Order: sequence, then C-alpha cells, then structure tokens
Amino acid sequence: MKKALAFDIGGTKIYSGIVDEKGNIVSEINRFQTPKTIDAITKLLKNEISKYEEEVDIIAISTAGAVNNENTAVIGSTGNLVKGYCTIDFQSLSGKKVFLENDANAAAWAEYKIGASKGSKVSVMLTLGTGVGGGIIIDNKILKGKSGAAGEMHFKMYPDKRRKCTCGGWDCFEAYASGTALKKDAEEALNNPDVTTYDVVEGVKNGDPKMQEIFDRWINDIIVGIKGLANLFDPDCFILSGSMAQFTDVKKIEKEVNSDIVTAPTLVKLAEAGNYSGMIGAALLAFESGDKNGKS
Amino acid sequence: MKKALAFDIGGTKIYSGIVDEKGNIVSEINRFQTPKTIDAITKLLKNEISKYEEEVDIIAISTAGAVNNENTAVIGSTGNLVKGYCTIDFQSLSGKKVFLENDANAAAWAEYKIGASKGSKVSVMLTLGTGVGGGIIIDNKILKGKSGAAGEMHFKMYPDKRRKCTCGGWDCFEAYASGTALKKDAEEALNNPDVTTYDVVEGVKNGDPKMQEIFDRWINDIIVGIKGLANLFDPDCFILSGSMAQFTDVKKIEKEVNSDIVTAPTLVKLAEAGNYSGMIGAALLAFESGDKNGKS
Repeated sequence: MKKALAFDIGGTKIYSGIVDEKGNIVSEINRFQTPKTIDAITKLLKNEISKYEEEVDIIAISTAGAVNNENTAVIGSTGNLVKGYCTIDFQSLSGKKVFLENDANAAAWAEYKIGASKGSKVSVMLTLGTGVGGGIIIDNKILKGKSGAAGEMHFKMYPDKRRKCTCGGWDCFEAYASGTALKKDAEEALNNPDVTTYDVVEGVKNGDPKMQEIFDRWINDIIVGIKGLANLFDPDCFILSGSMAQFTDVKKIEKEVNSDIVTAPTLVKLAEAGNYSGMIGAALLAFESGDKNGKS
Repeated sequence: MKKALAFDIGGTKIYSGIVDEKGNIVSEINRFQTPKTIDAITKLLKNEISKYEEEVDIIAISTAGAVNNENTAVIGSTGNLVKGYCTIDFQSLSGKKVFLENDANAAAWAEYKIGASKGSKVSVMLTLGTGVGGGIIIDNKILKGKSGAAGEMHFKMYPDKRRKCTCGGWDCFEAYASGTALKKDAEEALNNPDVTTYDVVEGVKNGDPKMQEIFDRWINDIIVGIKGLANLFDPDCFILSGSMAQFTDVKKIEKEVNSDIVTAPTLVKLAEAGNYSGMIGAALLAFESGDKNGKS
C-alpha cells in the first residue's frame, strides 16, 4: 500500500506523519511550533522530509493559504502566516512529488472520503476556529476556481461597514462566525476587552442569560451564512469542524436552516475525520493525483 | 444540422422559436401571454409543439423555477408562476425528447457557449430584473446541486430582519439587487410608494442628486453581493444580464469588486447573447444531452 509523508502547516503549529491509501495514520505525528521565518520553515520541512522520504511514495502538504490549481505552490497566504510564505519553493524540498492543498480543502476531502460527508454529491465544510475556513466539494472535485482560491468564506454580513475582517475588508462571514468573532461579540455586548470565548462557553454552561444571548447571536450569524450557502450550492450536507464546532448544536442549526431556504433540505453535521483530517485529506488527494504533473 | 423547438416560459410571457446547433434562431419567435392556469399553459405548449414537432429533433424549454438534475421536470416554482406549475408533465407534451433547464442557468450556458463568458473556467451570471436569477458554470458544467436548485441568489445582506424577500425569507440579495429592490430603495428614501425604477434611472440621467444617491446604494448592494460570490467561486467573470443590467457601469463595479476580494481579480461584463439567451442556452444544452435519458 502506498504511503505519503504528510504535513499540516498552520500559523502556530506544523504537524507531520505518515498516511496510507486508506487514510490511516500509520506513523506517529510530530509536532513543531511554526518558525517565524520562511528560511526556518523551509529548513524544518527539508529536515523532516530527509528523515522519512525513503519510506514514502509522495509528500502531501495541507497548508494555510490558497494553493494553485496544479497543487504545486501556495499563491496567497493569510495574515496568520509569515510574510513571504507563498514564495517558498515547495517543489525543491524533495526528489519525490510534493503535492499541496489548502488545509480547509484537504480536511473537506478527508470528510468526503472517510468522514461525515462520505458519498455526498455536494458538500460544504466550514472550519470554525480562529478564522473560518471553507472547503466545497462538487461532483467528486474540490471547488478551486480559476486560480485555486475558491471557497473563501468572505461574503458580507452587512452592506455597510461595521466590523473589520482579517482579510482587510469589512463584515465578512469570517468576522461574525469565527471563534474570534464570538469574543468580539462578547467584548461589544459587555464592553469588556478581556472577555474570552471560554468565558462565553462557560457562561452558557452555567446558565448565564447574558452569555447565552451573546452565544445565540453568534449562532444566528452562522445560521444566516449557512442559509445563503445552502441556496447557492444546494448541498447534501454542511460539515462543521474546527475548535469551535463542538459548541454548536448541529441539529438546531439544521432545523433553522431548512426552515428558510429555497433549495431542498440539507443536513448539518459535525466533522468525523479527526484532528488530522488536513493531513489525511492532502495524502488521499496526493495519491489520487498520481504521477500527473509529477516528477519522474 | 440539428434543430430544437425552444420555449422560454416566464411569469408574464412565453416565447417560442427554432434554434440550431450553433445557437442561431432559425425561425421566427412567437410570443404569448403566460396563461393563468396550468391547463391553459399545457394546452398552449401542446399546440405549439404539434405545429413544429416534425421539423425539429428535440424540444428545449427554458423555464422559471428550479429544474431537476435529469432535466425532465420543474421541481420548485417561484411566486411569479401559477400555482401547481411544477406538476405539469412536460414529458407528455411530445413524442420527442423534452429537455428542461432553469432560465437563468440556460441563459448562463448561452453566454458560456456563444456570449460574454465564452472559454471561462468558472463564470457567474446574474440576471437583474424583477427578481435576481443566478447561473453558475464550473468546469463546463452548470452548478445544479443535489436537487437541481443551486445558484439561487438568496444569501442574506443583513443578519437581522429588515426587508422581506419574494422567497418568504428576509434580506436576501434578490431583495436588494433586483429592479424591484431599486424601486423599494426609492420608496423608502423618498417616502413615496408611487416612485418607479424608471423615475430613478431618469433622475440619474438628469443629474438629480437624491436619485443618484438611491441608485448608488442599489449599485453598492450589487457590489457587496458580487464580492462575496467572487470569494466563494473565484470566477473568471461575472455576467450581468436582465432588464436592469444596462443601467449599471460594469467597469466601475469590476474595479470596486477587485479592490476588496481575497481571490484573484475577476471581470464584470454585460451579457452578449441577446434577449433569447434562455432559449438558445436550453437548445444548446438539449443538443449536448443527446439521447441520454431520452425517449426512443
């Protein structure tokens, strides 16, 4: 069975492990703090690859930032990554083929192949974490768009300017549906810059009505976004993943969404492929990509 | 060369004509008021088909409402059509294959094959008329979703409830970007229920600053919607069609959209396939569908 050396490169952590063709993680996961310079990131990746390269057939990288349609390079990076990240020459890191995919797309693919959206015709995955990631799968293909950057959850929640988004624009879905947004909602409602998402979640658990109100507003914003996506994509299902997903009531969200869309009813589910779904998805995509565009 | 008897069925008018494989309208267009009952619509279609059936290879219908993935039936109809419209048995109308597609999808396909989005990998067409229609083409396929209803422009412009939409929900893009929305904007701004979209457009032409302000708000709402769609689909281009499109400055819209998206720059263009693009698109799709799912 083929094996991939897989990486998940995020703004704060880098993970590596070996993944087989069935999406099993067959060797231990290594964890690193993401270095602060592109030279140090390149060195870390090269070092890891040199250790495991001989054992595997392909290198599969799940990364923050948009990845081109050839899956060879990062074409745009987010505020979370070091400046110049997209100038890294990933192809020079190994004699074997190096396959890249955006982390949300890769995780959505893992859900589609072995997780919660298995067998769906159209699925939309939302990762609710520090930001909001999106991975949309249509007819067995990730929606990549003309450049590779599709699936960005930066549609507007207000047509006028209210809340700045990390993308530089205003009032994007990400600015209302992320964990950071829940903190921001609480800051605004309580006029307290030190309140945390943890405070809100704990408050809800303890029956605090003010915290419940803040939480409900955040959930309402997520529902509003999902309704719009449901009408655009008419998907079989939405998959919620990321650190904040666990706090949502997916059955309640599903019911509210289906009460107010013009397309056919959809499902809302929690992700099932686990914390390493980005690595698993990138590896499964890399195997499928075969030697197309590959090195000899 | 193959020929299709094509229909365009809308809430107020029905058109018919004969379209060839190159997308040319080879026989005159007939025009009818849309009858007010499904029996009368069925009778009208049957009568037209009986007249031209022998001359053509296939019947192609561009229709308001969502069409199923098999292109055989209408699965959901909008407020503009008579009640029960989706119960019409279109397949019984002819011994030849009867192919249906949603009118916005069909028009988007005509733009893609012979019009403004020719050769694009990903395109989004918006028809700005009484309502707002959407037709999204990705990798040579119309985005249909699980049931056939995808591409509905009912994403929210506000997360709270402000303006009712024709779909029964609140604050959809359609409720802010349609011609009806421009009238509504003017009604609200001028506190005058009798003001028309024509008044606004004429006012802008004559340099009326209040009318310009109303018009600018409407254009801003369209831009806000397009930005969100650009980040989701990363399309090569947006095509604006419908009766209101002519009043927009597509170059200005394009510039503003590209100043505030996270994906790669996109184009905004006016439709080029003409007033019968729905019929042309439906016919071209019908020819491509060949005898798949067809009658013998």
